[in-house]
Amino acid sequence: MFESAKLEHSLDKATFKRIEPELRERLLNAQFQLIDQKRRSLLVLIHGPDGSGKGAVLNRLYGWLDVRKLRTLTFENGDEPDTAHPPLWPYWRQLPAFSEIAMVLGSWYHRPILDRVSGRLGKAQFAAEMEAIKRLETMLHAEGVALLKIWLHLDAEECHRRLADLTSGRKQRPVVREWPTLTTPKARALFAEMAEEAAIATSTSDAPWLVVPAADPQYRDVMIGEALNARLLAITAEAQPAAAPAAAAAAPPALPAVSILSALDYNLRLKGTDYAAQLAHEQTRITTLTSSKAFRRSGLMVAFEGSDAAGKSSTIMRLREALDPRRFRVYPIAAPTDEERARPYLWRFWRHVPERGRTAIFDRSWYGRVLVERVEGFAAPQDWARAYGEINDFEAQVTDAGYALVKFWLAITQEEQARRFEARETTPYKRFKLTPEDWRNREKWPLYDAAVTEMVDRTSTKAAPWILVEAEDKRHARVKVVRAVADQLEKVLG
Amino acid sequence: MFESAKLEHSLDKATFKRIEPELRERLLNAQFQLIDQKRRSLLVLIHGPDGSGKGAVLNRLYGWLDVRKLRTLTFENGDEPDTAHPPLWPYWRQLPAFSEIAMVLGSWYHRPILDRVSGRLGKAQFAAEMEAIKRLETMLHAEGVALLKIWLHLDAEECHRRLADLTSGRKQRPVVREWPTLTTPKARALFAEMAEEAAIATSTSDAPWLVVPAADPQYRDVMIGEALNARLLAITAEAQPAAAPAAAAAAPPALPAVSILSALDYNLRLKGTDYAAQLAHEQTRITTLTSSKAFRRSGLMVAFEGSDAAGKSSTIMRLREALDPRRFRVYPIAAPTDEERARPYLWRFWRHVPERGRTAIFDRSWYGRVLVERVEGFAAPQDWARAYGEINDFEAQVTDAGYALVKFWLAITQEEQARRFEARETTPYKRFKLTPEDWRNREKWPLYDAAVTEMVDRTSTKAAPWILVEAEDKRHARVKVVRAVADQLEKVLG
Repeated sequence: MFESAKLEHSLDKATFKRIEPELRERLLNAQFQLIDQKRRSLLVLIHGPDGSGKGAVLNRLYGWLDVRKLRTLTFENGDEPDTAHPPLWPYWRQLPAFSEIAMVLGSWYHRPILDRVSGRLGKAQFAAEMEAIKRLETMLHAEGVALLKIWLHLDAEECHRRLADLTSGRKQRPVVREWPTLTTPKARALFAEMAEEAAIATSTSDAPWLVVPAADPQYRDVMIGEALNARLLAITAEAQPAAAPAAAAAAPPALPAVSILSALDYNLRLKGTDYAAQLAHEQTRITTLTSSKAFRRSGLMVAFEGSDAAGKSSTIMRLREALDPRRFRVYPIAAPTDEERARPYLWRFWRHVPERGRTAIFDRSWYGRVLVERVEGFAAPQDWARAYGEINDFEAQVTDAGYALVKFWLAITQEEQARRFEARETTPYKRFKLTPEDWRNREKWPLYDAAVTEMVDRTSTKAAPWILVEAEDKRHARVKVVRAVADQLEKVLG
Repeated sequence: MFESAKLEHSLDKATFKRIEPELRERLLNAQFQLIDQKRRSLLVLIHGPDGSGKGAVLNRLYGWLDVRKLRTLTFENGDEPDTAHPPLWPYWRQLPAFSEIAMVLGSWYHRPILDRVSGRLGKAQFAAEMEAIKRLETMLHAEGVALLKIWLHLDAEECHRRLADLTSGRKQRPVVREWPTLTTPKARALFAEMAEEAAIATSTSDAPWLVVPAADPQYRDVMIGEALNARLLAITAEAQPAAAPAAAAAAPPALPAVSILSALDYNLRLKGTDYAAQLAHEQTRITTLTSSKAFRRSGLMVAFEGSDAAGKSSTIMRLREALDPRRFRVYPIAAPTDEERARPYLWRFWRHVPERGRTAIFDRSWYGRVLVERVEGFAAPQDWARAYGEINDFEAQVTDAGYALVKFWLAITQEEQARRFEARETTPYKRFKLTPEDWRNREKWPLYDAAVTEMVDRTSTKAAPWILVEAEDKRHARVKVVRAVADQLEKVLG
């Protein structure tokens, strides 16, 4: 992949001066397309050995583009990496809004390449990480975040010479140092090899790698400028951000004749005295587990879904009582803000992934994508269909980082729901919980039934299981939920 | 202030049960007013000795209110405090949006009381901190963030007994531990005294303290519920969030006959060769200073204001070249997002205050409040008039934390601006920088002149000086800016 970049490439300064104004104009026009459309952002990943000119490329693009919609995101800055969250969290946190271009230094390729060079990652593990990156990038592209990945290719000895120039003499320039000093020819060769391996493994039509010969700055910048222009034209010409891949657009597998919810036993009951004793017991378990030393290196995420009036709020209250109020947060999920709408749907959940040692409870969750958005048609079929895999990847990030994650569906019968709606109408301080919308939603019961069944089938994993809760009897439901959280915590904390 | 709370107060359970539904209903109605109006948020600060029932109050309010617009914010959680930013940063970062109620544990009162008890703060310093808090709370109130401050009063021996109960036995509950264990009667007396001193010093009509006798939970909760209800009614009844205080609404002092900008020497020029040498020299100074160890405990904020076409972007580019791209960020300030609009105007700048060791450059800044918002009438006179003091407080937070902060006004003559606008019209890749708006803004030149003069008079401080830059000659302007940043850095880093 790097072969052609090793040949000599150059562009004389006079030619550069001649073609630059016209290139700038084209680039700006393409950028304004992106800005005006407001439904795409572009990440330009800038990689290369230290001394290959990453900082110079950044400065050039700042000179060419409209800086009001241009950002630089930097990671792996040589300090301690963020270990308080799952590994992808820093990237998500800084994801630009639609219409912005962000240049990224130290992207998600950084750590795997480094670990592969040092031998901490074997060949198979490295390949698996590259696959995970490909899935991430496919999702980002489908969600409106386009990618252009640049590798600046420059001979190792030349890099070394340039680094020395930049850090001495009367005109010093800051150096983008991302990689450890590679002292032996063998180390340098291995580094180049691993970078090439990464580029080959992850160059896709949605997220292509561009290998740029970086010896001559004029040649380098024009090549990057042209590629950026082409990428901007391509993504702004697309009819809609989420192009439907053929496979994902195919119909979901035939639904089972019996829905997973209709198979529950809605007669389960718990007596008042048993309830009080069992609830106190399970709450104490949670208090003890979340106060433990092991929990400080872990974390807890709990997602609540369920029919309207199934008792989510009052169940969450029982979890709340067991948790230190300084170390947990409940997120009621309603309509997204405009900052959230300008990014992939998972962004608003990534921003609430708790630090280690803390708990986040979601009152409705990322599963809205395959529940309400599917049923109400807010998401196109190809979009919610791909969400199962994307959600599994998201949750794997969280559980692989050592967190406990539990998901609850609180299930009641239609008859019980009607009874609770009526009770809400007659109790003054409960009236606010009922809207005409709630009554209308009842007509979609069978659609939700099918959506829940498919959701549980596709996203119940060992590390992040779905717990179906018979919530006809609130006491039974509360104890089951609190116990399941305690069990999962116990399992994860070991 | 605590006298009456020391008397015995109680409410029997039967009475509580009888009045609770009606109180809940009133509370919910008042909360819905807040939610529907969307122009106010409410912070409920909950303080008191450990064991006084802070967690129980939280849980009760979660039971009573609509939790979808209710949050808990916790600070001072016993871990290392955030030292990577100025002290108020964590509070700003978590400030709720309008229509939300946030319950706050470990507010800005926490550290001063602790430091006063331990003797780290003397009487005068403590009084100064209380004054600063009063100014902060006055500003929050004027900006739509209402406050209710609760102190739970409970005898120290009783607190101790309750803590023991909560952490042993079969039914454990998490304990909100905020304060160090006070082992001697003398320490406990001092703590109570300092808390009372803080409450007396900072109880204002806009941000009242409520001292609650906390021995009897029913009495405690009804008293808090009624106070919360009254506060919600009061703030939703106000005609507009920013009530105009009589003093602030008074006319600004008479403007000087000669504007500060007309006194500049617009003939200052720099030759090309001098420019190149001087620029390289100053840039190298900045590179060296920002790479130093001392800078890691400091930070840099630079604000750029100026007439249209005065050369802000190209000047920022010269700073950019001197800075490590991984450690600085440029923030172009345009229209606020809806998350920003739902909070005090300084919130969008607080969120970009850099970590220590990093640089934030603002392409237009918080001074928009007293420039464009004043001139265009986007802010009412009483609102921009109070902004000078608020901005000085904001900047003092930053500079007191050891950061360098420099503010530039780039000044050109009206004739030069006309020439630059015309050049923009004829250069294809510059055309995007010019809008019909820009031509129209020229008519407001005298208004901006007056606004700039008052702004510089009122906000140029020793720690955060305004530098007026004659920008008629771009080379002169760039060198002056880069040199001033280097000078200020040198001064701050010592």
